[in-house]
Amino acid sequence: MTEEAVRVPVDKLRAFAHATFERVGVAGEDAAVAADVLMASDLRGIESHGVGRLKMYYDWIKKGIISPQVRFEVVREGPTTAVVDAHTSLGHPVAHRAMSLAIAKARPYGLGAVAVRNSSHYGIAGYYALMAAREGMIGLSFTNARPSVAPTFGVEPILGTNPIAFACPTDEEFPFCFDAATSITQRGKIEVLAREGRPTPAGWVIDRRGDLATDTTAILQGIPKELYALLPLGGAGEEMGGHKGYGLATMVEILSAALPSGAFLWALSGMEKDGTPRPHRLGHFFLAISVEHFVPLSEFRSTVGGILRELRAAAKAPGQNRIYTAGEKAHLREKEVLARGVPLTPALRKELEPVAGELGIPLPW
Amino acid sequence: MTEEAVRVPVDKLRAFAHATFERVGVAGEDAAVAADVLMASDLRGIESHGVGRLKMYYDWIKKGIISPQVRFEVVREGPTTAVVDAHTSLGHPVAHRAMSLAIAKARPYGLGAVAVRNSSHYGIAGYYALMAAREGMIGLSFTNARPSVAPTFGVEPILGTNPIAFACPTDEEFPFCFDAATSITQRGKIEVLAREGRPTPAGWVIDRRGDLATDTTAILQGIPKELYALLPLGGAGEEMGGHKGYGLATMVEILSAALPSGAFLWALSGMEKDGTPRPHRLGHFFLAISVEHFVPLSEFRSTVGGILRELRAAAKAPGQNRIYTAGEKAHLREKEVLARGVPLTPALRKELEPVAGELGIPLPW
Repeated sequence: MTEEAVRVPVDKLRAFAHATFERVGVAGEDAAVAADVLMASDLRGIESHGVGRLKMYYDWIKKGIISPQVRFEVVREGPTTAVVDAHTSLGHPVAHRAMSLAIAKARPYGLGAVAVRNSSHYGIAGYYALMAAREGMIGLSFTNARPSVAPTFGVEPILGTNPIAFACPTDEEFPFCFDAATSITQRGKIEVLAREGRPTPAGWVIDRRGDLATDTTAILQGIPKELYALLPLGGAGEEMGGHKGYGLATMVEILSAALPSGAFLWALSGMEKDGTPRPHRLGHFFLAISVEHFVPLSEFRSTVGGILRELRAAAKAPGQNRIYTAGEKAHLREKEVLARGVPLTPALRKELEPVAGELGIPLPW
Repeated sequence: MTEEAVRVPVDKLRAFAHATFERVGVAGEDAAVAADVLMASDLRGIESHGVGRLKMYYDWIKKGIISPQVRFEVVREGPTTAVVDAHTSLGHPVAHRAMSLAIAKARPYGLGAVAVRNSSHYGIAGYYALMAAREGMIGLSFTNARPSVAPTFGVEPILGTNPIAFACPTDEEFPFCFDAATSITQRGKIEVLAREGRPTPAGWVIDRRGDLATDTTAILQGIPKELYALLPLGGAGEEMGGHKGYGLATMVEILSAALPSGAFLWALSGMEKDGTPRPHRLGHFFLAISVEHFVPLSEFRSTVGGILRELRAAAKAPGQNRIYTAGEKAHLREKEVLARGVPLTPALRKELEPVAGELGIPLPW
């Protein structure tokens, strides 16, 4: 983050995002969910998925790629399962309802799972996993995404960054929350580097010759043209386990596309062959596991806490004085952002000014 | 594999493994399952978990670390869930019964999950995921394992290699099957290198100073003494996503230990403080997802097949002429091993000779 970043209070920024979604046709309650997901991202330090993406959603709604009026059609339902067609609606409120449904099913039966098709970007996967954690459950959240990642031995960006999120309660003051792309990095992180004018670390991205690429601007412009591809977790080839990241991404694709019978891989590009924008038709999969059906919640909480504390107490590598567990950095960041506000770079403020102008919303900074 | 490897027919080797398990007290049907899991590993080319580990199980049963008589006590049960205490029984038949139970629950309800505590090594995680795939379901299989992997920023081998396996049916002649440790590699792979007298690739293992280690013999001897640690998928530090492999490993630890209220991390070392062997008390977690509760199975099969074929058709990196999908190499290997037999190195044959001698079983080669 550069020195020129301005800190904006979370509530003011949330109100701005909420108003933006409402003015482009999202109903009040759905706009509140979408704004809350963006705020949760900035609070957790995942700036790649925070208010920095507000203009992206705004543009897509204006272009008709995302439908602002949320449709949530349950096309099939069983005691613990449901399949939902979202009819290209805004992803965040769709995902919120889907995870709520999975949680409601898990409460009596122990498990609940909802698969969604024809949705759009839902923001951070962890948001929905955390909904289950707050209900004393384990939550898992998966989504496919626009093509940007090469399979092992390939150079074409055909897979999405296909994240896996897993959250659960602990006996500490914040939940365990793992939330990560199955690629080494994701487009949002490279967008953050672009806003900061920084190069991309060697090892994250390859070009069509299979060589490592570091030119951030060229990469962002080139991925939709299939000139660059992100690498799966584990990197190129198999020696360092790149086939594992690739396999996990495929698993997420199957859960997100095959279970709800939705679109997959190239069909998620958001573009017709001639470059005309069209809906991304993403799919999601949500799973809620009711802890109380297995063990008393207090017992589960203390086992998880015990695992986390034992990990943190392990011997540190030279030069390192702390081992973190998943969700811990986000928790520390949340405290800091709540106190000091969300940092907005000059580039991001400049990007949002015309949006505010067009919609007649006062700028929050 | 060296040139001196002898090829032994699968059925002869299976009978040998079956007889070995039976002679040390495992009941016939359970011995058959354990032998089948070892054979499935060798057939799929996962030699690290095949008959090369028969002596390990033999030793552990003789030392009392593993109880050959299988106990499968369901301590808690709901419509879709169960918790099982395995009382330090042999892991393969325990896991087989647990996944069978998860599948039986998923059939009427759509989902089924079974968490197991106080078990032992269950072989390849994928074996149990594949059981669900054969029933027209998605299967997931997780287990924790002996401490051997360092958390991000740590050097102590505190986490297990904690694999994730995911299998499902497709419209092709073999199922999709992802089965991988959440570390870059696992101990079994290094054991294979040791049997072949080869060094360990730089990047898989660190020493207590955080430096990369490649001396295979020293590594295998040093891991139980906590002198070396495997690295999580993504490698050391965070830049290439090492925290993601570490986070996935922690997720598997929570599913395998906190849901069944079992042992975790250091407690799985299999040794008292003074080095006396004791049961590992591993935990497992199995999930079955009935495809038919979401979409017609034939539709699911063809969507998955479509995903896999689109991946394989992506542009190849220079020097590569093929992109594989998870389970494909195993399928090719299976055909080859069925036709030619399981390759056994001289070191492995030498290791098994005294076992056969002690038990009075004829050698299968």
